[in-house]
Amino acid sequence: MFGTVAVNGAVHRLEELRLQDFPSAFFFGAGFFETFLVRDGAPMFLERHLARLRTSLAAHGGCVHGPPAEVLAPAAVREALGRCLEADAALGPGFTGVGKLTAGDGRLLLSFRSLSPNHEHLQRHGRSLDSVEDTCYRRGDRTLQHKSLSYLRQHLHMERMPVFLNEAGEVCEVPNANLFLQLGEVLVTPPVDAPCLPGIIREVLLEAGHVAGLPVVEQPVHLSRLNDARACFLTNSVGLAIAVTHLLGRSLPESLGLAEDTRKLIESAG
Amino acid sequence: MFGTVAVNGAVHRLEELRLQDFPSAFFFGAGFFETFLVRDGAPMFLERHLARLRTSLAAHGGCVHGPPAEVLAPAAVREALGRCLEADAALGPGFTGVGKLTAGDGRLLLSFRSLSPNHEHLQRHGRSLDSVEDTCYRRGDRTLQHKSLSYLRQHLHMERMPVFLNEAGEVCEVPNANLFLQLGEVLVTPPVDAPCLPGIIREVLLEAGHVAGLPVVEQPVHLSRLNDARACFLTNSVGLAIAVTHLLGRSLPESLGLAEDTRKLIESAG
Repeated sequence: MFGTVAVNGAVHRLEELRLQDFPSAFFFGAGFFETFLVRDGAPMFLERHLARLRTSLAAHGGCVHGPPAEVLAPAAVREALGRCLEADAALGPGFTGVGKLTAGDGRLLLSFRSLSPNHEHLQRHGRSLDSVEDTCYRRGDRTLQHKSLSYLRQHLHMERMPVFLNEAGEVCEVPNANLFLQLGEVLVTPPVDAPCLPGIIREVLLEAGHVAGLPVVEQPVHLSRLNDARACFLTNSVGLAIAVTHLLGRSLPESLGLAEDTRKLIESAG
Repeated sequence: MFGTVAVNGAVHRLEELRLQDFPSAFFFGAGFFETFLVRDGAPMFLERHLARLRTSLAAHGGCVHGPPAEVLAPAAVREALGRCLEADAALGPGFTGVGKLTAGDGRLLLSFRSLSPNHEHLQRHGRSLDSVEDTCYRRGDRTLQHKSLSYLRQHLHMERMPVFLNEAGEVCEVPNANLFLQLGEVLVTPPVDAPCLPGIIREVLLEAGHVAGLPVVEQPVHLSRLNDARACFLTNSVGLAIAVTHLLGRSLPESLGLAEDTRKLIESAG
């Protein structure tokens, strides 16, 4: 993480932040975060990220103390971001990397990190998904529809990257991304009550309605239907669309082209 | 929270703690905590709390960086606790209240707070449980068997205090306590894979084998069986045993005596 951050719009050094200013976020995971791509100094889909953050805060009004409303306005966040990039030579006004907003205890923390070393490789060559995790997602669990600081469940599985299944054997998501599957001539993604995170890129694709000529639909997907997938990709706000070239042992070479088309669509929308 | 804390055995002021020293704990809820009663300067069931903490850390070795082993030794924690109580006149060597251990990012944080204002009232008069939460616990979910900083799911419901049910309609726990039910002439508590936290007091009672002449057993309890309960109490490390005088609308006056007997047993064991 870079050493320059902003708290409620004011630029700080990371080392100035005190644990006691984020007590509920720290001790109870009572806060929410948004991770987004910054390209040449411009945050991608910032309005959508802030809208989701506001939704999560509103849904937890009694137990998560959100930052002041004015601090959550897109213009205010853009200004804070610009001030951080200017203040830190390691960032700079043309910074490309990852921005992160963390909200809790009445504060909005803006921080930055570099793209991960394998970012380019994932974009070009995709990845494989080799396992499922069938013990901890429950259909309709709303706690998994918010990107909260109570993130251990995802963090624990970040390396292995399993496909989470609910108790009905339906596909939900992977630890850091939504899942899209080409089934016949339709692009299917699980509904949010699978449950899965209502991802920003997922939302962009559902609103677009079509990707590479395929209609995009929300639909429960049982594990057994993964055998019928012709192509598959993952979406999140940093990787945008990442091809799944091998899905539970099956090779899906068409995923690369589909992910690339999807990425172009997302980039033009963002 | 009191202003004096210890980190890996060294006494600090709370305001000296920096967020950047707990990055994974803060940003990903990647850490664990233990809350325990301190009576006249003595922590109750400390060895058991530290054993559970070590178990949770061992089960998450790849993603939670625990403190050095020597810091987790009971003698080391007792010493740190003693140093804190001496260093802070507001605590003092005869402190009675709540101690908390938080482990993550290679650190063990020891902090203190007062007993909640309604502590005495709960001990004397018990409480009612009026609702269930039937959407977010899944049978066998191991993530709920650890007391992690990813605690929003519990924190969100702390006020309402519902009984969590799994997808089979079985009773699991309440947000901050295990549940014991007198069913006929047996005292029943749900198994840890319901799931529920393997609570320290729960463990003490299971090991004791009998409470007030009733054998204590782990057994799945369907919601419908709550109607047959003659008495009910909650256990956790601060309240020890709290009577449930009203359970989903039914009055259970026998709970008060049973909880009191249970508390005596726990206090003599601790």
